[in-house]
Amino acid sequence: MAYRNRNLASQTQRPLAPTAPRRRPVVTPQISDRSRLRGFANVGSGPCHPLTDRAANQHLQTYEANVKGSFELIVPFLKRISALQHDQDFVSKCQSLARSELGFDLPSHLLEQAWVRALDMRALFAWCVFQSHQHVSDHFFQEDPLQGGEGSIQAKHFQSFLVDCGFHLLDVSPCADGRLAHTIAYALRIPFSSVRRRSHAGALFDVEKTVNRWIKTEHRRYREGVPNSADSPTRYLKVVTYHFSSLDPSHQGCAAHGSDDALAASAGQQRLLDFRESVENSFCCGASVDLLLIGLDTDTDAIRVHVPAADGSIVLDEWLSAEDLYHETLSLTSDEAMQHIAERVEAIAPKKPDEGMVAFIVKLIANNFSQIDYVKQSHAGPYPDAGHAERFIGVGIGFKEVHLRNLTYFAHLDTVEVGAPDLDVGVKIFKGLNVSRDLPIPVVVRFDYSGQVPGARDRAVTDCYRVNQAIAERYSELFDQGLLHTFLTIRDRDKKDTSEVVGSSLEPVHQEAH
Amino acid sequence: MAYRNRNLASQTQRPLAPTAPRRRPVVTPQISDRSRLRGFANVGSGPCHPLTDRAANQHLQTYEANVKGSFELIVPFLKRISALQHDQDFVSKCQSLARSELGFDLPSHLLEQAWVRALDMRALFAWCVFQSHQHVSDHFFQEDPLQGGEGSIQAKHFQSFLVDCGFHLLDVSPCADGRLAHTIAYALRIPFSSVRRRSHAGALFDVEKTVNRWIKTEHRRYREGVPNSADSPTRYLKVVTYHFSSLDPSHQGCAAHGSDDALAASAGQQRLLDFRESVENSFCCGASVDLLLIGLDTDTDAIRVHVPAADGSIVLDEWLSAEDLYHETLSLTSDEAMQHIAERVEAIAPKKPDEGMVAFIVKLIANNFSQIDYVKQSHAGPYPDAGHAERFIGVGIGFKEVHLRNLTYFAHLDTVEVGAPDLDVGVKIFKGLNVSRDLPIPVVVRFDYSGQVPGARDRAVTDCYRVNQAIAERYSELFDQGLLHTFLTIRDRDKKDTSEVVGSSLEPVHQEAH
Repeated sequence: MAYRNRNLASQTQRPLAPTAPRRRPVVTPQISDRSRLRGFANVGSGPCHPLTDRAANQHLQTYEANVKGSFELIVPFLKRISALQHDQDFVSKCQSLARSELGFDLPSHLLEQAWVRALDMRALFAWCVFQSHQHVSDHFFQEDPLQGGEGSIQAKHFQSFLVDCGFHLLDVSPCADGRLAHTIAYALRIPFSSVRRRSHAGALFDVEKTVNRWIKTEHRRYREGVPNSADSPTRYLKVVTYHFSSLDPSHQGCAAHGSDDALAASAGQQRLLDFRESVENSFCCGASVDLLLIGLDTDTDAIRVHVPAADGSIVLDEWLSAEDLYHETLSLTSDEAMQHIAERVEAIAPKKPDEGMVAFIVKLIANNFSQIDYVKQSHAGPYPDAGHAERFIGVGIGFKEVHLRNLTYFAHLDTVEVGAPDLDVGVKIFKGLNVSRDLPIPVVVRFDYSGQVPGARDRAVTDCYRVNQAIAERYSELFDQGLLHTFLTIRDRDKKDTSEVVGSSLEPVHQEAH
Repeated sequence: MAYRNRNLASQTQRPLAPTAPRRRPVVTPQISDRSRLRGFANVGSGPCHPLTDRAANQHLQTYEANVKGSFELIVPFLKRISALQHDQDFVSKCQSLARSELGFDLPSHLLEQAWVRALDMRALFAWCVFQSHQHVSDHFFQEDPLQGGEGSIQAKHFQSFLVDCGFHLLDVSPCADGRLAHTIAYALRIPFSSVRRRSHAGALFDVEKTVNRWIKTEHRRYREGVPNSADSPTRYLKVVTYHFSSLDPSHQGCAAHGSDDALAASAGQQRLLDFRESVENSFCCGASVDLLLIGLDTDTDAIRVHVPAADGSIVLDEWLSAEDLYHETLSLTSDEAMQHIAERVEAIAPKKPDEGMVAFIVKLIANNFSQIDYVKQSHAGPYPDAGHAERFIGVGIGFKEVHLRNLTYFAHLDTVEVGAPDLDVGVKIFKGLNVSRDLPIPVVVRFDYSGQVPGARDRAVTDCYRVNQAIAERYSELFDQGLLHTFLTIRDRDKKDTSEVVGSSLEPVHQEAH
């Protein structure tokens, strides 16, 4: 597989550890200004809230437009090469076009069949989606484009703020819906490495696994004093982010809860309470956790916060709307606006709230103002893609690099046997998005592993193959018709390196002679 | 489902917590002396080693003979009722026989079809196996017949001995082979509640899950000082028990290692080393664990121990044979025998061994002498069932009640997707044992759960149904022909109560009118 790009020489590269695997060069897709800005008005100009971070908005918009732009090039490109497929010098012409337009080669075994039968456009489409994602993913791990990686100034500041608020770990479960995939880095503006993110359909996270994560976190505090020592009076904060649609509440809400906002909120709260009760019942000595319930409007990205009292109680049908606060504070100075938000947070809690929790919520709301402006200014109103518009399904454990809205439907699972309900929802969504247009469902399988654990890499590879096999069996009709393709990747989370490709349904069954 | 027995009124019952589920009465199967002692010579008389615990041997033999005897009644009983199936008063006659001979009723919907078509003997066989197991299981949790339950004097003594040896947790992985199911309670004579047992094919335990268990154990020491405080210089001891056959080494050894003893030992050692490396690499501050490799001869139950030096090093092709030591010490007094064993343990270690480890191994070997006599005296030689003779397959998480040799092939799994290789081996074994005789494979599914965790019971029920469905799909040919039946059970491990039946493939599709 060859990667060539005229920008390659100028790419900065971090030094590699001697044992690190060969690094794939990062290729920034060639994106014309027209395609880059298609669907995006510039967020850098125009009036906005005094608390809005214009520079961050511009930076985030460039990233989103670049990444999504690279996916948008695929269909027009394939249409072009479709017209060329009977040309004499098709293969070389096509590869040269692919390199210049997309930044990567196409698989020769697919192109070389063009003279004898029609190009397998489904396979080429899947290939282009997988390569585009892989480039975005490599770039993310090598360059930290969202500036939220471990060790970044942003992450250090946020971690210290978090501890000041009285929390030593922030664990957020958004819904698996692709319209929530940007919750951390965009909607809440939190450095991605400062959060444990676990996406689940309906935000209904796994209680047992979260208890295990709590144990691991507390154990590290006892043993290593990381992130702080166990005798510091800080807490583990578990957040659920459910979602709703302000413009089309009964159709574009959370599918897992039948677009019923009240149900989404109460189910999220119940899961949070179950988690706390599990910790309290399973461990003595005052073991407990803090809980926070947040709603996100998928049309505007404005959040609403169910502010808890210091005793943890909340009122399900009362919340603080960031959208309301945005308007209330539009004409104030930054300091006055912060002061106003803090007063409103304190006032809405059912009983006296915890000071640290108030400070944390105030920051989330202020951060969210930037995102409210981001959406408004990018689209001159709410999001134009109110419904699903994901580009691929991500299956497995990992995907730390996915932080864009409507890029990935995420099925967080160890096995298809357990995760099938979430995966079925994703396949149903993509039947509408892709199969209806005769295009395949691209499924990226990922298993992160800990390279410090002997045998873990081999087990991650085995996990990929196992899940691939289970997907091929469960969706055999789509798979056999080339309407579902898979791309298998693993990643050493200890090395914090790029992911490694270990297989794909696009591999040639046998290599043709050249 | 009715349970009736003339002994019922005299059963002692522990008081139930107000929230406890209805307790099923324990019915001791009616076992004639002839069937009870079939295949067992009395272990109470005759010469034995001075360290052998005759009373324990007699107690353990009664338990084994009772339990296995109850399974042995099934086929003769079914042959009897087969001859009666066209009698006018068949149903009532059959139920009355079942109650008096087996101690439980048969399902009416299966008996009432006898006049119109032949009795479904496969289904009745499966029913009897499931009921027999359920009675044995209930009896185990209610009466602690092996006297090794949590809180028993035996368990308290052993736990204190363990800590004196320098270990705060004993975690043993025997092979999943049914001929190792009695490793803890019989071969090593350890109170079952003092051990974390995880059976896996080839004794190849899951490194990641064992690291998680290590974290939980250490966390509890830090937080609760249980079993001792984290600053006590004790260690987590992980033991692997591989197996071999002294009489037919190339056929009756471990199937997972192709009956190659040396491979079984080295694979076990490698997994142990991987576990230690994982703990050491993942945690700082001198985190480590102790390791021990033991082999078990499935013909005689004699163990061999690869005695480790204090630095953890062992020599794979050198071990201490309990069988040899038994003979070397046969004419000594108990004290002299213990002294001799201790000297031999110290002498065989590649470098100076740890004192606590020596004391621990000496006890295991002395305990094992009782088992060597148990086998010899029960069968006037080695086991007559050299190969597989399991009665059912146990699938899932749990089965704390299974402590008899060749009773259960155990496939420890969360999902069939991951556990299929182990389960396939079990199904293959039972094709030979049962299907070849036109009898079905009885599969008991069990998911233990923590009742203190909200929603955990519901999730355990869902897990049972999910695994049942996956088994029905994977082995659809057997399942559809009634040659594989399932019985779904869950158990609250916090309450330490009996298991609860939540479904079965034997349930009537629709209830017939009476």
